[in-house]
Amino acid sequence: MANITCSGSIALDTTRTPFKTVENVLGGAASYFSLSARFFADVHIASVVGDDFPQEYWELLETRGVDLEGVQKKPGKTFHYDCSYSFDMYQRFTNKTDLNLLGVYEPWVPEKSRSNEFVYLATMPPAKQREILRQHTGSKFSMMDTIEFYIRGEYNDLLQTIKLVDCVVLNDAEARMLGEDPNLVKCGKKISKLGPGIVIIKKGEHGSLLFFDKHVVPFPAFPLENVVDPNGAGDSFAGGFLGSLAKQGATKPTLENLKKAMAYANVMGSIVVGDYSVNPLVSSKIEDIERIYNDYVSLLKV
Amino acid sequence: MANITCSGSIALDTTRTPFKTVENVLGGAASYFSLSARFFADVHIASVVGDDFPQEYWELLETRGVDLEGVQKKPGKTFHYDCSYSFDMYQRFTNKTDLNLLGVYEPWVPEKSRSNEFVYLATMPPAKQREILRQHTGSKFSMMDTIEFYIRGEYNDLLQTIKLVDCVVLNDAEARMLGEDPNLVKCGKKISKLGPGIVIIKKGEHGSLLFFDKHVVPFPAFPLENVVDPNGAGDSFAGGFLGSLAKQGATKPTLENLKKAMAYANVMGSIVVGDYSVNPLVSSKIEDIERIYNDYVSLLKV
Repeated sequence: MANITCSGSIALDTTRTPFKTVENVLGGAASYFSLSARFFADVHIASVVGDDFPQEYWELLETRGVDLEGVQKKPGKTFHYDCSYSFDMYQRFTNKTDLNLLGVYEPWVPEKSRSNEFVYLATMPPAKQREILRQHTGSKFSMMDTIEFYIRGEYNDLLQTIKLVDCVVLNDAEARMLGEDPNLVKCGKKISKLGPGIVIIKKGEHGSLLFFDKHVVPFPAFPLENVVDPNGAGDSFAGGFLGSLAKQGATKPTLENLKKAMAYANVMGSIVVGDYSVNPLVSSKIEDIERIYNDYVSLLKV
Repeated sequence: MANITCSGSIALDTTRTPFKTVENVLGGAASYFSLSARFFADVHIASVVGDDFPQEYWELLETRGVDLEGVQKKPGKTFHYDCSYSFDMYQRFTNKTDLNLLGVYEPWVPEKSRSNEFVYLATMPPAKQREILRQHTGSKFSMMDTIEFYIRGEYNDLLQTIKLVDCVVLNDAEARMLGEDPNLVKCGKKISKLGPGIVIIKKGEHGSLLFFDKHVVPFPAFPLENVVDPNGAGDSFAGGFLGSLAKQGATKPTLENLKKAMAYANVMGSIVVGDYSVNPLVSSKIEDIERIYNDYVSLLKV
C-alpha cells in the first residue's frame, strides 16, 4: 500500500445542529482525512494533541490503521472547535475556535514518514505547511488546503506555499477570494497559474470542479436527502481524492487518474455527512464505498 | 421529424448587464425554447404578439423553421420584460414586466398542431396551461414550467395543472417553495408525488437534478468562463430536453432517454448565455451542438 502523510488538526468538536448537540467528539481535518484515506492507503498523521485527548479516540484512529507516531502528545489542551448549523443545515456559524496546543504546534515528521510519496497539508499557517513539506525529503505528490484567514492575513506567505505543491483544494468562497473573481472557472485557472498543476474547487452540495492541464471538469455532488453533520466533508473528500491517487500509484496523475480520484472524493464526502463526527467513516466498509462509487459512476454515465 | 407545440411568451426584452444594455431584443420563453428545440424537432408556437412586433423577428423565427400559425397577431403591444444583472452576473433584478397582450392571451392551438405528440407549457397562468393541453387531443408527452408568482398566488389551480403533465421543470427556488423544504432532493420527490413522473430542478451554474422513478440523477452545468446574458437559459435548457426526447421518439421515456435529453438540455443552456438575446441559438449549427454534447458526455465519464 502507498503511504500518505497528513498534517493538520486533530480536534475535539462541539457541533450544534437543529436536531442535536454533540460535545467533544473527535474532529479536525487530520482525523477526517485519515479515516477517509485509510480505505485506500496507509496514512500517517503529523499533529499535536493535549493530555485531555481521550484515549478512546487515540485507539479509534490506531485500530483503523492510522499511524500516530507523528502526533505529539503535550501537556495542555487539544484544539477545540465549536459550531452551529442553520435550520436547513446549509450554513455553519463558528461559535468558538480554541487553538490551544495547535497554536504553538511545531511541525515534525517522524523519520520513517519522510519518504511517504503523498503528502496532504490540511489548513495551517502557510509557513508550517512548508516546514512539513521540507521535512518530506522523499515526497512525490503534495496537496494543500487553506482558509480565508490565511488568504486574507498571510497572503504573500501563502503564495510561497502554493508555489510548491502539486494540488490545491479550496471551497468556492476561498477560491473566489484567492482568484479575485466571482467566476469560479476564472478563479481555478488563475490559482493554477500560481504554481499547482491541479486545482480543485469544492462547492458543497453543488459538487466540485477539477482544473488540470486545459481541462475543467465538473462533478456533481451525490444527491443527499439526509444531512446530519456536514463537519469534515471537505477533509473526507480530500482523503478520498488523495487516497485514490495513492492507491493508483499516480504521483504524476493523468486526467483519467484524477477523474477516478474525484469520484472517490465525492463518495467519501457524501458518506461522512450521514451521521455525527467521524462515525460514518468508522462504520463504513470498503464494500460499501465500492458500491456507492459504482452507483455514482453509473449515475454520471450518459 | 417529431412535432412539439410550445405555448408561452414571445417578448421584447430590455437587458441591462454591467457591460452593455440591449433594448427590445427578441426574448420570451417560447422564442428561446423553440430556437433551441428546432435543432431536434419541428416546433409550433402558440402565443400572441402585438402590432409593434418587428417583422424581422417574425422572419427570424420562421426562417429557422419555427411554425408561427398559432401566434396570434393583435392590435396592441407585445409582452415586454426589462431586467438588470448584478456585477457578477449571478443575480437578476426585474425592473419592469409589461404583460400587455399576453395578459389577455386566449390559448388557441391551430388544428394541425393538436396532434403534436410533445407539448411544452412555458410559464403562464395554470388555467391557461390546462386549456392548451385540453386542445391537444393527440399529445402523448407534456412538460410544464411555472414561477413563484403562481406557486404563491394560484396554488390550488397550479396543482390541477401539475397533476396532468408528465414532467415539471423548475428552478431551485421554485422547487423549494413548491416542495416546502430546503432540501432539493426531498422537494423533487414531493413534487413528483403531485403527479408528474419526471421532475427536473435547475440550479443555474450548479447544474440540475433529474427525478424519475426511484432515481435522482445529478448533472453538473458546463463550466463557463464567459456569461454574457443569462436570459433564456432555462427555456433553452427545456428546449434541448424536450427536443431530444422528441427526436428519440420517447413519449414514454426510459432513464437512458432522459439522461441523454438532460445532457442536451445542459448543452443548450450553456450555449445560449454566451451572447445577448437568442443570438447564440441563431448562429449555432447542429455540428457545434453535437461537438459540445460529445465534450460534455466525455467530461462526465469516469
